[in-house]
Amino acid sequence: METREVRPVGVVRRREAESTEGKCVIVILPEFKDAMLGIEPGNRLQVLFWMHRLGEEDRRILQVHPQGDTSRPRRGVFAVRGPMRPNPIGSTVVEVEEVREAEIVVSGLDALDGSPVVDIKIAG
Amino acid sequence: METREVRPVGVVRRREAESTEGKCVIVILPEFKDAMLGIEPGNRLQVLFWMHRLGEEDRRILQVHPQGDTSRPRRGVFAVRGPMRPNPIGSTVVEVEEVREAEIVVSGLDALDGSPVVDIKIAG
Repeated sequence: METREVRPVGVVRRREAESTEGKCVIVILPEFKDAMLGIEPGNRLQVLFWMHRLGEEDRRILQVHPQGDTSRPRRGVFAVRGPMRPNPIGSTVVEVEEVREAEIVVSGLDALDGSPVVDIKIAG
Repeated sequence: METREVRPVGVVRRREAESTEGKCVIVILPEFKDAMLGIEPGNRLQVLFWMHRLGEEDRRILQVHPQGDTSRPRRGVFAVRGPMRPNPIGSTVVEVEEVREAEIVVSGLDALDGSPVVDIKIAG
């Protein structure tokens, strides 16, 4: 089956490069700013992001020990939520803290600094 | 920012081509079959799929009337869950009805026949 092209719509920015804790900022690319209309503090948003630190070889891993615990039996990557998977797309529901010109300050996003954001949806 | 390549891991198959109701089958591509290990009937899975009927022009739409209702004010596509968005990736939580050799029968998946599946995660 043919591959599909995903285009970043924004990027995650946070102060500490190696952390995924606390608030962070989703900086929306200028050409997608109009797609923010209606987002308000207090909203819950589902954020899809590309786990960009993973390499091509990580995309070939099909089974893992859950939470990296080798005492637990292997499971397929479709039966866990870890980062190793054929398409390294993270999906997390976050809370909107603040909306600025082309930025959304959120809490609860377990994405590293620099992660490309590929979609945002109101949480259903 | 650079684009990323998404590779289908399976495809949605259902009897009625124009429906998104009722049970359907996720046919996993042979090379990703091992990633199913541990999926069982009764599991809730988050399925990410490509809304393949949308065209290139639909990816440029940034604001819509919610549910197509023109009496409602426009919202940005990041503030709704409709199919129009820069990257047409659907995200739905489904229930596993049956697991076969390289197929997962699910209920609750609002994807059309032929939709490429790009990721499956246990629902968290």
